[in-house]
Amino acid sequence: MKNALASLQRKLAQKKYDAILISQPENRQYLSGYTAHDSSITESSGYLLILKKGSPLLLTDSRFQLQAEKECPAFEVVIYKKGMLNLLEKLAASFKIKRLAFESEYFLFSQALELQKICKNKGITPVPSKDLIEKLRVQKNHDELSKIRRSVTLNEKVFQKVFKGLKPGVSEIDIALRIEAMMRKYGAERPSFETIVASGPNGALPHAVPSRRKIRTGEPIVIDMGLVLDGLCSDMTRTVVLGPSDAFTRNIFKIVRQAQLKALQTIKAGVQCCAVDKAARNIIKKKGYGDNFGHGLGHGVGYAVHEAPSLSPRSRKKLKAGMVVTVEPGIYIPDWGGVRLENMAVVQNNGIELLNHDDTFLNFADS
Amino acid sequence: MKNALASLQRKLAQKKYDAILISQPENRQYLSGYTAHDSSITESSGYLLILKKGSPLLLTDSRFQLQAEKECPAFEVVIYKKGMLNLLEKLAASFKIKRLAFESEYFLFSQALELQKICKNKGITPVPSKDLIEKLRVQKNHDELSKIRRSVTLNEKVFQKVFKGLKPGVSEIDIALRIEAMMRKYGAERPSFETIVASGPNGALPHAVPSRRKIRTGEPIVIDMGLVLDGLCSDMTRTVVLGPSDAFTRNIFKIVRQAQLKALQTIKAGVQCCAVDKAARNIIKKKGYGDNFGHGLGHGVGYAVHEAPSLSPRSRKKLKAGMVVTVEPGIYIPDWGGVRLENMAVVQNNGIELLNHDDTFLNFADS
Repeated sequence: MKNALASLQRKLAQKKYDAILISQPENRQYLSGYTAHDSSITESSGYLLILKKGSPLLLTDSRFQLQAEKECPAFEVVIYKKGMLNLLEKLAASFKIKRLAFESEYFLFSQALELQKICKNKGITPVPSKDLIEKLRVQKNHDELSKIRRSVTLNEKVFQKVFKGLKPGVSEIDIALRIEAMMRKYGAERPSFETIVASGPNGALPHAVPSRRKIRTGEPIVIDMGLVLDGLCSDMTRTVVLGPSDAFTRNIFKIVRQAQLKALQTIKAGVQCCAVDKAARNIIKKKGYGDNFGHGLGHGVGYAVHEAPSLSPRSRKKLKAGMVVTVEPGIYIPDWGGVRLENMAVVQNNGIELLNHDDTFLNFADS
Repeated sequence: MKNALASLQRKLAQKKYDAILISQPENRQYLSGYTAHDSSITESSGYLLILKKGSPLLLTDSRFQLQAEKECPAFEVVIYKKGMLNLLEKLAASFKIKRLAFESEYFLFSQALELQKICKNKGITPVPSKDLIEKLRVQKNHDELSKIRRSVTLNEKVFQKVFKGLKPGVSEIDIALRIEAMMRKYGAERPSFETIVASGPNGALPHAVPSRRKIRTGEPIVIDMGLVLDGLCSDMTRTVVLGPSDAFTRNIFKIVRQAQLKALQTIKAGVQCCAVDKAARNIIKKKGYGDNFGHGLGHGVGYAVHEAPSLSPRSRKKLKAGMVVTVEPGIYIPDWGGVRLENMAVVQNNGIELLNHDDTFLNFADS
């Protein structure tokens, strides 16, 4: 955290910003350790104001004062009563801020209009900033990687416990609830996203919401789950079949698994993101299912469950060592269902460290 | 929904907008019935494009195509592959949109910059719009009120079941999990916000996150919970004590309850929001706890769990019949804990319809 703050302050000096206002919740936690969770951008539990020099500030309202002071001893906690921008106006004057950066990718247009008004009154130049902290975050350090490993391990433990108890006749919702309850029981802060359990035809929706449908034998059941542990996220998808699976299903599993393996073999520092996507996509295309794989191959994972880099067909960015990505090809067939397999990997100079060790899916794929 | 769309189209005509882009998830559901849930503003599951005349459009990506088509038969579902703004550019041309409104209070600054660029290229005027749909939503119709009643009733049922099972030694997290699991078991779509269980000193944080602390006899335990049923939210806080409570605690309960009753008596159409806050706040102040009530008295509830109107000391807006508000005074004492009581009420011309019937708290308050 201290290193991150120092790096950021160097960036501020380079860019001639006097300060930056941090509104993005994961950036806020990354820089301060503050664990408050925002249910929506319109319900912020606080902002950071990082000055080029001097102590960093955490701005919040009285509801969060005790928590902020407890969790962020290195920060000066300042309470706003009439809204954050009202307080910011005063702080900008007392710290003689002339150039103030703000996070344009996590700041509402209406807030920015207000900010611009304040800045105009006070002779401050507001500067929309993009990806500044995200870039600091994208290559994980030793401590973050070990936290991510623990997050992944716990996620697999929960999956395996739940998988062992799966029986036909249980509803998707009940399975999702069991998963999320177990996550927290074992110490996770929360699920890193809403758990997906999509059985049979429901699996044709990659982001299906768990329904009251009861799972049956013989059909593919997509389980996409992740958790937050010590601030760091995990994300894994397994597709499972209860009882015997037919040849068609086993073949779909095989294609998806081959696509995943190919992508994992392609990943190393210096490779373009789109090349990784392409490696997997080409295999699915060749087998005739190109139109049944409508989403990107994967995404970065860290303080946010979806962050840079994006392993999408359109991203020409290059992978760097220490990035953590998901690889999650899928085949979705309307009225039949879907098969998606998702593992996480750390990008290294010469390949990857595979973070997932669960190999449940091998039971369902033709080899 | 049909009426809402027709009202909105009349508004568009009045304001001479050719179309409005809807990004706010609750507005999207209110107008279309689309139930997809966005975990964050940066992970939208779709947008509406409502034209001054003609069929409304729902723009989304392939992950949500089946769901959108199923849930929104009155909408033309259009899929974007290269981002929503890229599709919007094409649609704006084909529908000859010249003045395009967008929701400035739920639109990222960075997105707005992109939108402005597109508009400039195509000779379109982008118009930041505020509260247009929120205003349509704020007075609930018959159907919405009955859904809210059902949401409140289910929320109370869950509370009462969980309350009956409360025993010393159970952790806050376990209670919160039990509540959320029961909500879904009984048919709620999801909790309307992250359930708060804050026991003993933890209750001094109005928005405490449930911890591993085990509840004890004799201390106040704040339980703030709500759910979403058929798209409509409920929100209720009860503070409870296991076993005998001391005179100090009973007196705090009494003050909070008196403040709540006073506010509920003050509410009717035409009264300023700040007057309702003041009615409750004055009672707490007179008893010497003014500094221990740091948040506003209440908020509107509907498709969003926090929406207009705000019963805050600063809002001079007037209540209207059909609004639904929470009334939730609290007293928070560092190192001791907190007592908050929250009920929901429908604003009527001559008073209120009280939506909550649970009176558990009466057991803990001196009369």
